Amino acid sequence: MSVTNPVKITDTTLRDAHQSLIATRLRTEDMIPVAREIDKAGFFSVEAWGGATFDSCIRYLNDDPWQRLSDLNSVLKNTPIQMLLRGQNLVGYKHYPDDVVEKFIEAAGRNGVDIFRIFDALNDIRNMEKSMETVKDIGAHLQGTISYTTSPVHSTEKFIGFAEALYSKGCDSICIKDMAGLIMPKAAKELITGIKDKVDIPVNLHSHSTSGISPMSYQAAIEAGVDILDTAMSPFAMGTSQPPTESVVASLKDTDRDTGIDLMKLKDIKNQCMLMREKYAGLIDPISERIDSDVLIYQLPGGMISNLVSQLKEQNALDKIDLVHNEIPHVRKDLGYPPLVTPTSQIVGTQAVLNVLMGGERYSNVTQEVKDYVRGLYGKPPGKISDEIIKKIIGDQNPFSGRPGDLLEPLYSKMAKEAAEKGLVKKDEDILTYILYPAIAPSFLKGERNAEAIPKLSAKYASRSSEIPSCMEVEVDG
Amino acid sequence: MSVTNPVKITDTTLRDAHQSLIATRLRTEDMIPVAREIDKAGFFSVEAWGGATFDSCIRYLNDDPWQRLSDLNSVLKNTPIQMLLRGQNLVGYKHYPDDVVEKFIEAAGRNGVDIFRIFDALNDIRNMEKSMETVKDIGAHLQGTISYTTSPVHSTEKFIGFAEALYSKGCDSICIKDMAGLIMPKAAKELITGIKDKVDIPVNLHSHSTSGISPMSYQAAIEAGVDILDTAMSPFAMGTSQPPTESVVASLKDTDRDTGIDLMKLKDIKNQCMLMREKYAGLIDPISERIDSDVLIYQLPGGMISNLVSQLKEQNALDKIDLVHNEIPHVRKDLGYPPLVTPTSQIVGTQAVLNVLMGGERYSNVTQEVKDYVRGLYGKPPGKISDEIIKKIIGDQNPFSGRPGDLLEPLYSKMAKEAAEKGLVKKDEDILTYILYPAIAPSFLKGERNAEAIPKLSAKYASRSSEIPSCMEVEVDG
Ligand SMILES: [Co+2]
Ligand SMILES: [Co+2]
Repeated sequence: MSVTNPVKITDTTLRDAHQSLIATRLRTEDMIPVAREIDKAGFFSVEAWGGATFDSCIRYLNDDPWQRLSDLNSVLKNTPIQMLLRGQNLVGYKHYPDDVVEKFIEAAGRNGVDIFRIFDALNDIRNMEKSMETVKDIGAHLQGTISYTTSPVHSTEKFIGFAEALYSKGCDSICIKDMAGLIMPKAAKELITGIKDKVDIPVNLHSHSTSGISPMSYQAAIEAGVDILDTAMSPFAMGTSQPPTESVVASLKDTDRDTGIDLMKLKDIKNQCMLMREKYAGLIDPISERIDSDVLIYQLPGGMISNLVSQLKEQNALDKIDLVHNEIPHVRKDLGYPPLVTPTSQIVGTQAVLNVLMGGERYSNVTQEVKDYVRGLYGKPPGKISDEIIKKIIGDQNPFSGRPGDLLEPLYSKMAKEAAEKGLVKKDEDILTYILYPAIAPSFLKGERNAEAIPKLSAKYASRSSEIPSCMEVEVDG
Repeated sequence: MSVTNPVKITDTTLRDAHQSLIATRLRTEDMIPVAREIDKAGFFSVEAWGGATFDSCIRYLNDDPWQRLSDLNSVLKNTPIQMLLRGQNLVGYKHYPDDVVEKFIEAAGRNGVDIFRIFDALNDIRNMEKSMETVKDIGAHLQGTISYTTSPVHSTEKFIGFAEALYSKGCDSICIKDMAGLIMPKAAKELITGIKDKVDIPVNLHSHSTSGISPMSYQAAIEAGVDILDTAMSPFAMGTSQPPTESVVASLKDTDRDTGIDLMKLKDIKNQCMLMREKYAGLIDPISERIDSDVLIYQLPGGMISNLVSQLKEQNALDKIDLVHNEIPHVRKDLGYPPLVTPTSQIVGTQAVLNVLMGGERYSNVTQEVKDYVRGLYGKPPGKISDEIIKKIIGDQNPFSGRPGDLLEPLYSKMAKEAAEKGLVKKDEDILTYILYPAIAPSFLKGERNAEAIPKLSAKYASRSSEIPSCMEVEVDG
């Protein structure tokens, strides 16, 4: 069988997989040996930076995110490093002014990022324009992203239109980003076929195994001609993470879409990952590794469900979880059906919890974030927000309809001066750390923070040999 | 979208899923409430009897397998009960004479089995003929099975030919049984398309998630027009078990192959299964739930790998595991590439362990089972065994080339008399229990055995709340 069109693989083990399974707690020192093996595999790219890793580095791990990037860069000689960038939010939770966006991307590129995957939670391209332009300016690979969701105001046609808009901005590839693992095989096929009909750049599918659907959708995507698939090495795959790299590679062996990746090389990576898994076993919640079929009913990203559980636990109101699950679609509808991804997942989830806990009238208590959202400060919602909801939430104010970034004054020079005065700056990148996380950065940059301990394994994954029945032979009955 | 050709679902939770994940330890009392919910779903069938469950019932659970069957039958009013039958081996590990085969199938049918899935480890149809005839005689649904494997002597064409042979025996459906989870999407597609070209009965695909490939192959199978898919409810799915029922059903929603099954009804079954999972949590080895990418390299069924590990542990020789993995393909080749499933998986595995542990020359020590296998007592191997190997293993004896069942004298009357004399017979079915498991049956039938305890949960799946970091919020970054 001659290989006419190999499927390319983006391995996410060093970013999304550990963000999804162990709350982004992987340390740089443990990434390096894995990256060394990964570099031999022949992946299209390795997603290893951005998303929540920046925050986690300084907040929990006392790891310098910039140092991590250049350390990774020094071992990933053959494999492009990919980062996830939240558009104008960069790796934070709010919009930053254009000058900060520019400086951040320049620094990321300088330190080793080869491919920038850029998304906006509302698919508002105005929130992506500045970062996309800058990526083009520095000559890196620009991957424009569709935040995938389903709703009465979303459709395959609209997503295809968005892909064309991204293409017209000079994107080098398009990513369909299915953060909740909800894209169905049929939808994946139609969307990929439709995009490939319109644009001549590679199309990537990124999904999560939360609902158990993603391997099926990957297969449908392969048949539809997808160019790149996102996978994670099996010790950090499945559940709220991606489908396994080894399985996807093996499934294509000796077909006309053979990845060309050697399973024995993947075994070496896997063995390294197993060591890593052992070290972090105490952080792995078995629930996050299992198929969560409730996702199919509530259509919420796996990470969002666990956050709701922990918010309700804190309020001693875990018995209200079903009410919250039912409230979320209401809030989402009222807000014009935003895709649920950082920061909209938090905005919608927290408001739904408030609505339930306050009882009485909906939106009797409204978070600042929801007010800002309705004011248009996050961008244009996918669907219309009714006048009634606008009135209820921001009274007689007129929502802003321009590009949110235009409201922001340049910040870089001012903050650079401030950081310098505080004695925080050893390298230019420290200024960006300070701008993005002004509350934590000072103690971090002064070396006053400590890495949190990795919880002990406890008996959770320990051998059960003393307690298992005398005979556990398994018959192979097919 | 009009549904032109709904995919049918066989749910395996009550047989293969617990055989694969908790060593067949599910008790009848815990099956009944689940079966009650299952009965409302609208499955094509529920696989709930046969395979290793018969043995496990009397050996470990002090459950009467016949009572289990009629209890299940009394709650499964709308859903056909399916059993897995090892051809002339019935639910044991050796061939039984024709009269026993006949009596067993009659009793199974009488007590509630509606669909008989019949396989032979060597795909030797002569080992299936007697049981297939009897199923036709009692008017039950006959599902003929292909034991799927890959080897230089197996091919899509040969499997299609075997399907035609099964069809000509009056099978009502054909099952492709992929016990190791090795069938690739392309192979599944070609095989299903090829079989459906030749025969006009439904085709079923049964696979295991061990290697992470099966959901992809299920998707390919759906596109190829597969009629029935085997799945397990999510709390007992994935890993060495089947892909999740909920995911497969959801993936087809609103397509022309919609199963028509209601996700909310599946949620009720799932909730019951979660209770069951809690009770048996102490038996669940996290390893059996994970994707085992080594399967892709060694091509061994998941259950076989764990058996090898425990055999080697007993011999204090776990360090030899890689040697054994390498030895298995040799032994399998020498024996004419049998598919690895009960009993050939044990025959090949044990001999490979012996070859490694004895060191020196291969087959310096040969098990009785391998001798019998080479003598032809298990049936015709898929490939030729070389004269050299025959000589080495059975010297100058001539292998038997007839139907193994023809060598066996009728046994039923004699054993019925014996059982009655021992005072073991309260109902006719007890005679079959005695014939199949003569060593354990007497104590079981006299009520002298006890169910083994279910191991305590220990801290394995207990809450980790005291040890997790203060902040485990997960950002949803897609
Ligand atoms: Co099976
Ligand atoms: Co993701």
